[in-house]
Amino acid sequence: MFLTEKDLVDLVAFRHDLHRHPEVSGEERETAARVEAHLAALKPDRIFTGLGGYGVAAVFAGAAPGPTLLFRCELDALPIPEISDAAHRSEISGKGHLCGHDGHMAIIAALGRGLARRRPARGRVVLMFQPAEETGAGAAAVIADPAFAGIRPDLSFSLHNLPGLPLGHVALASGPVNCASRGLRILLDGKTAHASMPETGLSPMRAVSRLMPQLTDLGRGIFPSADFAMVTLTHAVLGEPAFGIAPGRAEVWATLRTLTDAGMADLCALAEALISQTAAQERLVLSYHYEDIFHHCENAPEAVAHLRQALSDEGIGHDATVLPMRASEDFGRFAACGPSAMLFLGSGEAHPALHNPDYDFPDVLIERGARIFLRVIDNVLELS
Amino acid sequence: MFLTEKDLVDLVAFRHDLHRHPEVSGEERETAARVEAHLAALKPDRIFTGLGGYGVAAVFAGAAPGPTLLFRCELDALPIPEISDAAHRSEISGKGHLCGHDGHMAIIAALGRGLARRRPARGRVVLMFQPAEETGAGAAAVIADPAFAGIRPDLSFSLHNLPGLPLGHVALASGPVNCASRGLRILLDGKTAHASMPETGLSPMRAVSRLMPQLTDLGRGIFPSADFAMVTLTHAVLGEPAFGIAPGRAEVWATLRTLTDAGMADLCALAEALISQTAAQERLVLSYHYEDIFHHCENAPEAVAHLRQALSDEGIGHDATVLPMRASEDFGRFAACGPSAMLFLGSGEAHPALHNPDYDFPDVLIERGARIFLRVIDNVLELS
Repeated sequence: MFLTEKDLVDLVAFRHDLHRHPEVSGEERETAARVEAHLAALKPDRIFTGLGGYGVAAVFAGAAPGPTLLFRCELDALPIPEISDAAHRSEISGKGHLCGHDGHMAIIAALGRGLARRRPARGRVVLMFQPAEETGAGAAAVIADPAFAGIRPDLSFSLHNLPGLPLGHVALASGPVNCASRGLRILLDGKTAHASMPETGLSPMRAVSRLMPQLTDLGRGIFPSADFAMVTLTHAVLGEPAFGIAPGRAEVWATLRTLTDAGMADLCALAEALISQTAAQERLVLSYHYEDIFHHCENAPEAVAHLRQALSDEGIGHDATVLPMRASEDFGRFAACGPSAMLFLGSGEAHPALHNPDYDFPDVLIERGARIFLRVIDNVLELS
Repeated sequence: MFLTEKDLVDLVAFRHDLHRHPEVSGEERETAARVEAHLAALKPDRIFTGLGGYGVAAVFAGAAPGPTLLFRCELDALPIPEISDAAHRSEISGKGHLCGHDGHMAIIAALGRGLARRRPARGRVVLMFQPAEETGAGAAAVIADPAFAGIRPDLSFSLHNLPGLPLGHVALASGPVNCASRGLRILLDGKTAHASMPETGLSPMRAVSRLMPQLTDLGRGIFPSADFAMVTLTHAVLGEPAFGIAPGRAEVWATLRTLTDAGMADLCALAEALISQTAAQERLVLSYHYEDIFHHCENAPEAVAHLRQALSDEGIGHDATVLPMRASEDFGRFAACGPSAMLFLGSGEAHPALHNPDYDFPDVLIERGARIFLRVIDNVLELS
């Protein structure tokens, strides 16, 4: 292919540098600067910065007109302390690249190295380094950015490494691959009182006691049936840590999850009816809002066909056994631009799970991921 | 009586100085120093300091042998911000004398002024400035202090001001006057999981949902029936404030309240059986402990008789209509030393409630409280 041994050594060094300096969602200023410096050296036709926050995109154009292919990776790390003896372990306390976004960035940078040597014959390739994937905010912000009009893709691709899947093996399927999810944050207001006179106040305790299991019980269907819905109660707090006060306020956090966005609309309606009814029964003032909103990620058959062809051409084993999965991924937003697809690249069956403190991206996947995407580019736009 | 106009002006200034410098339970270092300086000027026969923390006691002895009478007040303020336009408002952010302990200290200091002029003919008077009443820790710590053996009382008295009762009117009764209470802090440990895979973890949510109302429902009896019991759920927290994690830990805080210590033993047994059963059903690891332990406050008829006689001698109206009350008071610990009694001195029907941010002790009660207790001393020990 188009990557030399020197490329791979450089790309591993690039990943390790990113890994040492993790930045969380929305704060990826230094990461974006490192990415921009790496891309600038490859002399793309254009670099966009500040997309939907700290997003960076490099454009490599062909001589003839043709479609725009976008390849997406993510800038952000996690607010989780890393446990590692590696020389490239996080130097930022309490933060770590524990989802492998550093590795995904190295793969998309590898495409840049290939494209720096061989431009596509037609169309354009956009290498998209997107911010704030972990909060579900970044892809939507990038797409809403006015500058995005200049790089709007015809086809979009992404990949995520996947512990539990054999190293280098690929999971790929058409249809929904990641669930829709969103956080529902509920506030219930009554009235505080002295703990010896609770009848003079109004505690949200009984509302919280009923709501938590009833919200959870809104879950239905067996995954991945079309009507699958799941509610996970993630957090609740009632009153203050004191023995002298009968509480007047409570907060309940739940994560709603469905196979599709249509299912999410139904689940939100059910949850909202339940919390409104409960608050009214208990005479509490209710307020609520949604956070961390992820659309479901739907792989378009046309985009999947390009990935399948590339995998066959490269002789890389693939199947659909682990798909769809319940976890969420904000790449689903790119489906609004045109056909898009995401594949999952095995990190090894015994590899620590994503978001675990001892997780680290396997460097051997950099070349493998880049090979697949470079083959897609060659197949669709013909590398010259 | 024995207090001059100058005494009363000085005592109001003393209270205002204490009010400006509130210190919370267990941290009453400066308050104790102010009290000690005020008492030292009165030349008592002995001053004890550092009793059970920052406790201070002054002893005024008679020439002849006789009983020891102890009068107790409290050093501590509350961790509640004061709202006041008064010149003597709290100068310490977030803390305030919002229970009137500054006023109670002025009353006991007033006894010192009287005793400085007229010693008892026999026995001894101990003026006890006790720390940490608000947490229920102070009285027990003072009594457990080895130095307490030197001032062990035969009779103990205390008073608390009481908003809602007409100004200067007294509530007094034999038997229980304040409830026993204690905080029960419950920890439930399961196992955290990714919010998309809650079945791989173990959430305490259903245990918390059942426990909160079931603990509350352990309440029984109509106050003040002998079998009265009340459980107030004051605080609960489940998991962390995040949408991505299914919780593995919860904490539940409840305040148990009974008319008597015997009733408290029963209520604790019921609560412990319930939490053990619930934790076992949900396969959670349970731990729990008690905090803020208050014994019930039982007025001994012999001590009450002395107070009643003094009230009649002073022509101060009194009845038992508001007693017993549900709130707790750690003076109950002094009953272990011998007959003890507490009276409640009206702060006015429209006065802001205790612990309210706009509460302030009515200065006119200083002379009234001191008059009652000086009359008790004169009646029992004969002021010379």
